[in-house]
Amino acid sequence: MRPVYVIGAGMTRFGRSEWPLVDLAAAASLAALHHADLGKIPVNAVVVANMGAGRINRQTAIASALVDRLSLWPAAAEAVENGPASGASAVKVGYQAIASGMADVVLVTGVEMMRAVDGLEATDFVASLSHPEAEYIYGVTLPSLAGLFARLFMERYGVERRHLALVAIKNHDNAMKNPYAHIHQPVTMEGILTSPEAVVNNPPVAEPLHMFDCCPVSDGAAALVLASQDIAAKLGAPRVLVAGIGQATDTHAVHERQDPTDLKAVRLASAAAFDRAGLKPSDIDVAELHDAFTILEIAESEAAGFFKVGQAHKAVERGETKLTGKLPINPSGGLKAKGHPVGATGVAQLVELAWQLRGEAGERQIAKAKTAYACNFGGFGNNVVATVLRKEER
Amino acid sequence: MRPVYVIGAGMTRFGRSEWPLVDLAAAASLAALHHADLGKIPVNAVVVANMGAGRINRQTAIASALVDRLSLWPAAAEAVENGPASGASAVKVGYQAIASGMADVVLVTGVEMMRAVDGLEATDFVASLSHPEAEYIYGVTLPSLAGLFARLFMERYGVERRHLALVAIKNHDNAMKNPYAHIHQPVTMEGILTSPEAVVNNPPVAEPLHMFDCCPVSDGAAALVLASQDIAAKLGAPRVLVAGIGQATDTHAVHERQDPTDLKAVRLASAAAFDRAGLKPSDIDVAELHDAFTILEIAESEAAGFFKVGQAHKAVERGETKLTGKLPINPSGGLKAKGHPVGATGVAQLVELAWQLRGEAGERQIAKAKTAYACNFGGFGNNVVATVLRKEER
Repeated sequence: MRPVYVIGAGMTRFGRSEWPLVDLAAAASLAALHHADLGKIPVNAVVVANMGAGRINRQTAIASALVDRLSLWPAAAEAVENGPASGASAVKVGYQAIASGMADVVLVTGVEMMRAVDGLEATDFVASLSHPEAEYIYGVTLPSLAGLFARLFMERYGVERRHLALVAIKNHDNAMKNPYAHIHQPVTMEGILTSPEAVVNNPPVAEPLHMFDCCPVSDGAAALVLASQDIAAKLGAPRVLVAGIGQATDTHAVHERQDPTDLKAVRLASAAAFDRAGLKPSDIDVAELHDAFTILEIAESEAAGFFKVGQAHKAVERGETKLTGKLPINPSGGLKAKGHPVGATGVAQLVELAWQLRGEAGERQIAKAKTAYACNFGGFGNNVVATVLRKEER
Repeated sequence: MRPVYVIGAGMTRFGRSEWPLVDLAAAASLAALHHADLGKIPVNAVVVANMGAGRINRQTAIASALVDRLSLWPAAAEAVENGPASGASAVKVGYQAIASGMADVVLVTGVEMMRAVDGLEATDFVASLSHPEAEYIYGVTLPSLAGLFARLFMERYGVERRHLALVAIKNHDNAMKNPYAHIHQPVTMEGILTSPEAVVNNPPVAEPLHMFDCCPVSDGAAALVLASQDIAAKLGAPRVLVAGIGQATDTHAVHERQDPTDLKAVRLASAAAFDRAGLKPSDIDVAELHDAFTILEIAESEAAGFFKVGQAHKAVERGETKLTGKLPINPSGGLKAKGHPVGATGVAQLVELAWQLRGEAGERQIAKAKTAYACNFGGFGNNVVATVLRKEER
């Protein structure tokens, strides 16, 4: 298997976009291509991560459209869809293109415009990933699944709403330092939980989860340029190695799982990624987790192996996951505050981590970060992609 | 690059399906898995080819759903979309997974249910792949592009409507021998062109193309099981090698091409596939071409290198592309008569070719077929995947 490097990373600011879908994708792509500074080296393939363009934006074949917008013909191109894990799945597909020898340089661009169609309810759109016969027809949405999951998880492990609030506060704080984040709004324990106004400021979405436990609905795009060892060496770029990718699926319907609080696909995908990378969770310097809901950051950090089961909320309380902590989690602000344009999210996690490993993360830079981990969580945990990056010394 | 083999192939009958999307995909997958006869060897990854489920069927993350329906957890899974070339793109993605060493066994399933949503016009849905600002808003559809293309191509090379009719007649004849074909209806030159009734039987769609120049709108699914050399050897299956895959993109808007009759992406993708396979067009024993419109079979057969430019219609007239001819084209009936469930088509082309190379094509078997070529044509020729298969003697 040929080694694969991240040689360029870029994104648009997440939030609301007035641009057409393909232009949004092109903007992130150009940022990553400029970052990679390829000169005359051609892009051999383009992989686009997207979940909803066919329905939301009434546009298909968007990978071909992106190639055309960037004049990258005759580069190979296709779009990859894996629900909220579309981004990391697309990175995996690009990775395999280079690892197999079919390509030397691949552009991977994630994009989503969640608000393009009037009257289409984003929550209903995302719920189209749930089990059609066992979940969707009963009105299940992702927030409702997360609420049920949170209730059981909190009861079992003694997690309280203030632990969830601490995750939100941390991620909003981090996002204040990220110019690409959707939400630039610091929040406090008083403002979202303990003051009388909190009842109004932070209304329930799916108990016990309130508004500030849930990610926003965002537009945005993020892009990576991946390259073979030869190309990376020729360009002399910082060597951010894709050290390992793992992926695992689980039952579609959440209630069919033996233990619904056990994020089995996160466990298996992470173990595979660490195994391929030759690293263990304790080797990791910085992580981006899929905190579409605050409870997920806590649960995923345990399933990935960073904390013992039932212990992560205590680590959050001790500040261990802050920018200055032992294991900073979601320095970008996470889905919670950076935003969650579905197809872009998994790519954006790796954009943040590539910047961190290159020392280009500005105010939120983690000192001496050499290793990084990302968890991109598809479905409600039924398709998870874990990625480990490692900076090679030259 | 590790060699990759097709060890199983199966499909549903194309046509109209009353089954839910995922069940349709599962039926084709099970046929391919039974054909591969894996025993206890696990499927490591599932790639689903689909263009429209998010919009037409209101379902996303269908690769995860298929894994669940087949109980293949924790296999990796994602869907691939590349318009009408989604099928061959998905095969390429599966191929790269094995070639890179990330997987040993991959299930690739193409599926489309074109008629699931009342009131959604299939032609408008497919037109969502055209250029939104330069084509779609002006009312361009795929049949209209094909009509314009046909007019220019016919004028330039002396192709007449009877040549197009000969393609339709041949492909309908072949489909009569294919139990999986959507349309089992033999057609004659009198019936569709020369008799007075032909005006009624075969009305214009986009002049000079008439109804019998256009593929039907179909539901259906097709699946392949791909495997590494070790697994293929262990199973002792006939050795159908994926000898070479090539892909190329071209301008999105057709009118931006220097010569709109030159299918440049077919040329480039085919040349790359032949080059990787170490074969030339004259080595090929059987081909499946993307005859969404009859004119495309003629034009693609030239761009792929089987005939000189402007000569293919004469070869059709001489019967060279019939089952008994020098180079049988579309023994399955092609998109024209086998049907065109968009995401399934590129996979189904390779299902037919795998059967042909294994000697399992029944009444339409090409004697001693050892090499095969498929052209899966995305957009209106702006993203093409060419695949060469070769049977290895054991």
